[in-house]
Amino acid sequence: MIDKFLIQQQDFPIERDPGFFETIFALSNGHFGTRGSREEAAFSHELVDEGTFINGFYESELITYGETAFGYAKEHQTIQRVPNGKMQTLIYRDQVLGRDGEILEEERKLDLKKATYERTFIWLAAGVKVRIETRRMASFEDPHLLLIETKLTNLSQAAEPLQFKTCLGPEKTEADQVSDDPRKAQARGNLHYEKLSEHFPLLETQTNRSRLAVVVGKKTTVKDEATEKQLTFDEANQTYEETFSFSLKPEETKVCQSAIYYGDFAPVTAHQAVSPAEIEKQLNQALNRFDNGFEEQAAHMSRFWEASGIELTGDDQLAQGLNFNLFHLYQAAGRDGQTNIAAKGLTGDGYEGHFFWDTEMYMLPFFIYTQPEIARQLLKYRHTILPQARERARELSIEKGAWFAWRTINGHEASAYYPAGTAQVHINGDIAYATQLYYETTKDETFMKAYGLELLIETARFWTSFGFFDEQDAFHITGVTGPDEYTVLVNNNYYTNRMAKNNLEAAFQYADKYWQQDGYQALFDHLEVKEEELAAWKKAAVNMKLLYDPDLKLTLQDEAALERKPWDLTTIPKENFPLLLHYHPVIIYQHQVSKQADTILAEYLFPDTVSIEQQRRDYLYYEKITTHDSSLSRSIFGIMASRLGFQEKAYPYFNSTALMDLTDLQGNTKDGIHAANLGGTWLSMVYGFAGMTVKEDGIHFEPHLPEQWEKLAFSIQYRQERFKVTITQEDVTVEKINK
Amino acid sequence: MIDKFLIQQQDFPIERDPGFFETIFALSNGHFGTRGSREEAAFSHELVDEGTFINGFYESELITYGETAFGYAKEHQTIQRVPNGKMQTLIYRDQVLGRDGEILEEERKLDLKKATYERTFIWLAAGVKVRIETRRMASFEDPHLLLIETKLTNLSQAAEPLQFKTCLGPEKTEADQVSDDPRKAQARGNLHYEKLSEHFPLLETQTNRSRLAVVVGKKTTVKDEATEKQLTFDEANQTYEETFSFSLKPEETKVCQSAIYYGDFAPVTAHQAVSPAEIEKQLNQALNRFDNGFEEQAAHMSRFWEASGIELTGDDQLAQGLNFNLFHLYQAAGRDGQTNIAAKGLTGDGYEGHFFWDTEMYMLPFFIYTQPEIARQLLKYRHTILPQARERARELSIEKGAWFAWRTINGHEASAYYPAGTAQVHINGDIAYATQLYYETTKDETFMKAYGLELLIETARFWTSFGFFDEQDAFHITGVTGPDEYTVLVNNNYYTNRMAKNNLEAAFQYADKYWQQDGYQALFDHLEVKEEELAAWKKAAVNMKLLYDPDLKLTLQDEAALERKPWDLTTIPKENFPLLLHYHPVIIYQHQVSKQADTILAEYLFPDTVSIEQQRRDYLYYEKITTHDSSLSRSIFGIMASRLGFQEKAYPYFNSTALMDLTDLQGNTKDGIHAANLGGTWLSMVYGFAGMTVKEDGIHFEPHLPEQWEKLAFSIQYRQERFKVTITQEDVTVEKINK
Repeated sequence: MIDKFLIQQQDFPIERDPGFFETIFALSNGHFGTRGSREEAAFSHELVDEGTFINGFYESELITYGETAFGYAKEHQTIQRVPNGKMQTLIYRDQVLGRDGEILEEERKLDLKKATYERTFIWLAAGVKVRIETRRMASFEDPHLLLIETKLTNLSQAAEPLQFKTCLGPEKTEADQVSDDPRKAQARGNLHYEKLSEHFPLLETQTNRSRLAVVVGKKTTVKDEATEKQLTFDEANQTYEETFSFSLKPEETKVCQSAIYYGDFAPVTAHQAVSPAEIEKQLNQALNRFDNGFEEQAAHMSRFWEASGIELTGDDQLAQGLNFNLFHLYQAAGRDGQTNIAAKGLTGDGYEGHFFWDTEMYMLPFFIYTQPEIARQLLKYRHTILPQARERARELSIEKGAWFAWRTINGHEASAYYPAGTAQVHINGDIAYATQLYYETTKDETFMKAYGLELLIETARFWTSFGFFDEQDAFHITGVTGPDEYTVLVNNNYYTNRMAKNNLEAAFQYADKYWQQDGYQALFDHLEVKEEELAAWKKAAVNMKLLYDPDLKLTLQDEAALERKPWDLTTIPKENFPLLLHYHPVIIYQHQVSKQADTILAEYLFPDTVSIEQQRRDYLYYEKITTHDSSLSRSIFGIMASRLGFQEKAYPYFNSTALMDLTDLQGNTKDGIHAANLGGTWLSMVYGFAGMTVKEDGIHFEPHLPEQWEKLAFSIQYRQERFKVTITQEDVTVEKINK
Repeated sequence: MIDKFLIQQQDFPIERDPGFFETIFALSNGHFGTRGSREEAAFSHELVDEGTFINGFYESELITYGETAFGYAKEHQTIQRVPNGKMQTLIYRDQVLGRDGEILEEERKLDLKKATYERTFIWLAAGVKVRIETRRMASFEDPHLLLIETKLTNLSQAAEPLQFKTCLGPEKTEADQVSDDPRKAQARGNLHYEKLSEHFPLLETQTNRSRLAVVVGKKTTVKDEATEKQLTFDEANQTYEETFSFSLKPEETKVCQSAIYYGDFAPVTAHQAVSPAEIEKQLNQALNRFDNGFEEQAAHMSRFWEASGIELTGDDQLAQGLNFNLFHLYQAAGRDGQTNIAAKGLTGDGYEGHFFWDTEMYMLPFFIYTQPEIARQLLKYRHTILPQARERARELSIEKGAWFAWRTINGHEASAYYPAGTAQVHINGDIAYATQLYYETTKDETFMKAYGLELLIETARFWTSFGFFDEQDAFHITGVTGPDEYTVLVNNNYYTNRMAKNNLEAAFQYADKYWQQDGYQALFDHLEVKEEELAAWKKAAVNMKLLYDPDLKLTLQDEAALERKPWDLTTIPKENFPLLLHYHPVIIYQHQVSKQADTILAEYLFPDTVSIEQQRRDYLYYEKITTHDSSLSRSIFGIMASRLGFQEKAYPYFNSTALMDLTDLQGNTKDGIHAANLGGTWLSMVYGFAGMTVKEDGIHFEPHLPEQWEKLAFSIQYRQERFKVTITQEDVTVEKINK
């Protein structure tokens, strides 16, 4: 019997990579994240990835190109590991937990209702057994706090001397390995550590080139008397070690509690904004109300599940996968307006901790409809990096507007392979789309005035400068890469042009609407928007080239879609997927093959622009040439299958989507969760199975419930109100609920 | 009055970069080359580029990519600087030539008839004047030998004590500078030097990763008695220093003669194949018959000019440029079957000393028609690297045949930017074209049997695997880059398809011809050629897609030629050329702009396939969108202008071609000569102005002599015979001459 809110190690095949569990059990609160490694890992000889990350805390490094050219991105940005506050062990005589003895009856679980990671096991060393129970949480209420509790129970017949050792210091990471896999992190920096206190663990970490600093502190208590405590600092490893010695009687239990403070990063010059005394105070408070911390976390989660959960009755395994995905998605989002959602959340440094279009197109709808405050912060981040996007546009000879970085942390382009990076200019349209969706869903006028309108205008301007009108006045966008990274530098990519059209229309519509309104003139003046420009946006939008082949009755992904060499995917050996790891780009790009939804993604977003029959034809055509080598693909194919009446296809796609990480479908969950796919799960449920569409006249549901399912229920917020949607095989009910 | 065979420093503007003269005055014999730096440069504080290179002597280095992917080239190969044998100075009391005193009345010149670089000047130091006359040659008769003679004459009133110091050691190079210019050398290795002799300068140079070694020796004599000689070795600089001390009476002249031996490179494990004693013997011989060396060089050149020269009467400056270019072209070619012609010859390390398609398409015709023995060696090089090309094809999932490296020294792909590297698969067709041209011009059956046929077959096989037949049986080649590097990864590039067609036809034609012939069966068996394969080549050739737009009546460079964004080149500021240094590739590639001749190059090669009227239309269209940012462009546009009757265009293009390096047209002659353009000069004269075409029924001339010219005369060899062609405004005479 499956508990839909509990992810337990015992439920997985035994051969799973340890790294898989570290990802699965990772905890985060959008500010920091820490992988679900065993507490004593640092004392073992195993190579594990303990990774603790602070969102947006990165090191830069000059990019070395095999051959460079004008305008290439200058610097790598790589999220860095901050000091590991989880390290602890137990010492019994000369035996060290992790290094010596045996682990018995181990259970590990992620509790999705409490947002805790828990572990119990028995350590057998030198004939003596100790039961160890730990629980851990990354606080949502106080985003600086990581809490770890360890209960030690003596299961032997006599009183035993024990030492509980708990540390704070740089993570012992795997040696960097040269890898041909472009999805892995490129570089881990040489960080500088500074001991800030003599009487409690307080360590500053500084990056070298990006000049950022962050302070991490830790306080630990062992409940009850008769413990002896010693604090030392291991200079060689820059690690604080705190040792508690005590004797434990048979059946007696000691409770050790640690509170770890992960500060906000800041420029090195402005560091230590929070004083050691203040940090110590906060840590002491956390220890004093330790159990309250866990209770508040559970209460927070209860509110989360109410607002953002999806209740699925009829398939417990899928329901569990769904819950797991929504939980990790919620964990991943930066909430401070200065950070965003990394491609792996804060569960690993794959993709360098960069922010991509994944946020806008896969994850934001979930937040917009269920956690609009977070959605607002995520969009605010884009506004924060507008200056860098403008600078980039000028550098690349675009006269007006912004050219957002394809992948970045600090706003500057960090893509070291421009054909599948900088050339993916659709990111501009993606940001505009999400901006509009947020506004239309929330009617948040303050946002529109402060951030939204400027984002819409600056992204729209890019298109009129980058694209062009032909002699028949059709508007073309050439030399770009769409979402499908198995074709690059193409002309009139369907998705890109569709998004550009939408972007231009939105800029026109809102600029027109606010043109004479009070309080907006300053913005228009500042941006030097002229009325002619509005007209130009409209003209480009109306005349946007959207490719269609009338003979084949097919929407075309790009001008060359039918020119390329056919490739029967069924003839490719299974072990040659993903193609990108087995074929040179020249070979991949010369073929009719798609890494992921591209045209289909556009039709998913704008279903009213193309007839259902056409969408069906397009779907069947593109499905045949799509490898889903990107984790962003299956959810969209699943949703469209629901919509288009391919029910027998929808369910397997959703299955893959909902269970992608839990079943390690892409084979690299150990490097971190697939954040976009988490968002895709929610999209699948709400846009797919529930068939939600939002139109001028309101929200509509046209459910396509798989017959196995009894019920689907979820909440959405729409223009300051919250609705509970319940779908059964017979019925759809929408009820307004009080927030 | 211009001496057509003399290039003198005084004829150039005074502001020219010192590096410009080092390139212009460089000497080479295809085995080694050394730049025309002043002998005392190493003793000055100037940063000069003295570069001495041995053809094919390279260091490898792992390529670091910003982001890597499957099948990328693994290693850089960079031609290395070998010990500098030119270093010498004069010491008068505490004054050192180069560092102290003044240089007066300096004259430097390159004598194209003698193949020598000569320099005279007066050194004024501490009130005393010494006249110094040097001459230098890289022997064509003994390719290991560099000879330097220095005559010292005392112009003062009294006998003066002098020291002549001459060295052999690593070159003092400029510090490497980070450059965004992809045309510059990427890396200079850390070489290892070993002193091999105590009694004369003999230095071994070893590379680190590529594990190659080369030995350089030097012997020097000062004529007449009363000189005192001392040999030391400066450990810190790994440099031999030989000092001759003597007293020079007023008007007395001392003659110092050095012979430097540049050995063949070999794997480190097989080095010192030539013993020190043998090297010393050769150097002593060279010194003993020092003047003979210079005489033999002049005799060699006299034969060269007779066989390969082009006599132009009516424009002495152009005639001089022409001679200069042919001389440098002749110097540049590897003659040992193991090496080729680097993009900068042996005059600099730009483009890393790599061999490109430039050889086959721009330089080989000159050698084929005037120096067929060298042409044969250059093609033999391609056969030598066939195993690497086969391996590369397999790695990139091509089932059969060879995929030649776009740029290489050792045969392995060294292009670190595949869109303008590996994707330029036309190199296969280029090699096949040159193979066929060599054979048809020479009827060298031994070559055909040993190398030619295999090259034709293995290159042809690539196309049938890489390309495909569509449903109407047209043969397509997709995802490639043609010669025009301002569009990449295109479909059905006209030039590529034309070359592939020719390659497939040639493979069919010769395989068919030799199919039943004695002595060929082993080759066909070894290559596992089946008769069906011949048919497949023919079918692909016959059905090759060659793009044409019937509405515009235009031959199309690729499927997307008319889709891209128009770019009026006249609106681009002059300082923004070459575009590649001022615009991001995404911007360049999205536009209708051409770096160089592409479709026009194909029409130049196969003039009978397209009507003259069509060629004229194509010319005028492509000329408007071509920037000539590649030095390979103007010569072809010039030839085509001649052929198509655009005489007013032909002359300026030829002017630019003939004087490209002498006028520093591309702005980077200091980095080395533009070898392909040198070949282009010959093509311009012979194919352009002389209007030579070779058909089944023989060689034809249809001259287009500019009216300024009186006469054009040159020799060509055709099927074991040599002909002298003389063209005047009135007449064409072709006379057979005895070799």
